[in-house]
Amino acid sequence: MILELVDRMLKGDNRALAKLITMVESRSRDLPRVMERIYPHTGRAYKIGITGPPGAGKSTIVDKLTKLLREREKTVGIVAVDPSSPFSGGALLGDRIRMTQHAVDPGVFIRSLGSRGSHGGLSRATREVAKLYDAFGMDFVIVETVGVGQTELDIMSLADTTVVVFVPESGDTIQTMKAGLTEIADVFLVNKSDREGADNILRELKLMVEMNQDKSDGWRIPILSSVALRDRGMEELLDTVLKHREHRKGLTRTPEEAARALRRELADLIVQEFKERMLQSLDGGLFDAYEKDLIEGKTNPYRVVMDILDDPKLFHSLASSGD
Amino acid sequence: MILELVDRMLKGDNRALAKLITMVESRSRDLPRVMERIYPHTGRAYKIGITGPPGAGKSTIVDKLTKLLREREKTVGIVAVDPSSPFSGGALLGDRIRMTQHAVDPGVFIRSLGSRGSHGGLSRATREVAKLYDAFGMDFVIVETVGVGQTELDIMSLADTTVVVFVPESGDTIQTMKAGLTEIADVFLVNKSDREGADNILRELKLMVEMNQDKSDGWRIPILSSVALRDRGMEELLDTVLKHREHRKGLTRTPEEAARALRRELADLIVQEFKERMLQSLDGGLFDAYEKDLIEGKTNPYRVVMDILDDPKLFHSLASSGD
Repeated sequence: MILELVDRMLKGDNRALAKLITMVESRSRDLPRVMERIYPHTGRAYKIGITGPPGAGKSTIVDKLTKLLREREKTVGIVAVDPSSPFSGGALLGDRIRMTQHAVDPGVFIRSLGSRGSHGGLSRATREVAKLYDAFGMDFVIVETVGVGQTELDIMSLADTTVVVFVPESGDTIQTMKAGLTEIADVFLVNKSDREGADNILRELKLMVEMNQDKSDGWRIPILSSVALRDRGMEELLDTVLKHREHRKGLTRTPEEAARALRRELADLIVQEFKERMLQSLDGGLFDAYEKDLIEGKTNPYRVVMDILDDPKLFHSLASSGD
Repeated sequence: MILELVDRMLKGDNRALAKLITMVESRSRDLPRVMERIYPHTGRAYKIGITGPPGAGKSTIVDKLTKLLREREKTVGIVAVDPSSPFSGGALLGDRIRMTQHAVDPGVFIRSLGSRGSHGGLSRATREVAKLYDAFGMDFVIVETVGVGQTELDIMSLADTTVVVFVPESGDTIQTMKAGLTEIADVFLVNKSDREGADNILRELKLMVEMNQDKSDGWRIPILSSVALRDRGMEELLDTVLKHREHRKGLTRTPEEAARALRRELADLIVQEFKERMLQSLDGGLFDAYEKDLIEGKTNPYRVVMDILDDPKLFHSLASSGD
């Protein structure tokens, strides 16, 4: 039944896609099977990341980029992520409303991911939704995140081109990030550049790019300015993203680099899948066996971990999917 | 031999403590045994977290707090963490130099942790060093981190009292964090409060505290100001931290809360330990078995993960410590 749903999605069924994304959000047990099935159909979509502090106008930028891409007859899948508050699970209602003009366009698909679950969980879910869009046949996937912290770094590592957006008031954010920024960013964009202080921040970014070397792949981060709300600078932004795509195409990956990337992907998947299963096992009774001794101090968490990991049977029970 | 080292540390041997911290940094295989051994000796030190953007004067504050605690004949273990750049592995040389006045004081122990390894790794190492200080008999452990992102949230969750430091220019940081800040902070401190804009930021913080409810344990976040370099506001800061300690003492944890905390600790430890062992196994040959098929597209990472997790023997080989 699940694989039937996948097949319908692969044939272009919008509602099947929506259902599969809901499975990602609810961490369905069938997800690994879904991902395994769609994997051969992925790898074609170009993934653009848009990140920056709240109020920088990211949603407007995503909106305008989408419009431009649609004019060029490209399809677009959008994932909006809100991890800036790891606690409140904030929804992006405002963004949703602003984007409704695309809601009736079958060439655009929009989903917001809340911040439920752990840091790693959100990054994983974003990756999975991007892969679903990709398998569905979207030409572009745009991932929008709020903030420029560790969570965003993790999420943005999935993007082929990452645009970091600032506003003239963002000096403090730049100070807080420093080295991290030039690692994550492929393009710097100062939005709302008609406001006071734009020159300062443009200068600050320029200095930062000059002080750092070019990125390891030889790309020098362009610094753009825009007023997205008035459509200023949006064509230039898209052209710059596409230029970066051309730059990336020109790079050849050595077999060692390809193997390293695969190894990393595999390791991440194993840890994440193990973690989900293990938490279910702990909640499903395994913890009870240790609880009393732990609370009475007869054993301690470190000893329990060693007991579990060194006992093949016990350990595997942690990773059984519970069927 | 390892346990001998632990015993020497527990008896107050400074050099044994230093060696054990180095084991934490180098992710020694013997760490679980070390942590298991010291666990019964932990739980007495009071842990203070100091975090905030770069340039907020956190090191000076740690320095002054340490001095005040020493005057009250308390011993202090300091861990300085620098994850603001997840890539550069920045060392805190400047901080180290500033703190050298304490270096000859046997009642103070200082270590910096770089940002090698993953996000989770740094948080784990910080926890372990704090536990080592605790077992060693330090009355207070001070953890200093740079930045207020997800990594810092993770690290700071170990602190009994977390002080979030700002400077008058930090408006943008506050905007970026919002809800997260009142969750992480037990005390807000505006340092360098003799500079322009201090009133603004004090007002902004006050508004934020008023708009949020008191914390779930009934504590209302105090907002302090200071000029640490001139010793202004430091006594008040320490008194506020101690007041928060008293507040916490007055709280009684239900058995359910205690069990939940233990379960969480156990789950985190299992995942982290599994991850370290698994990465070693992958590098140690397991990956080679899949590499060719993966690169040729005959299988894919999701299928490999299912194969491994569903095969008890294969799975356990991932977690064997490699001896």
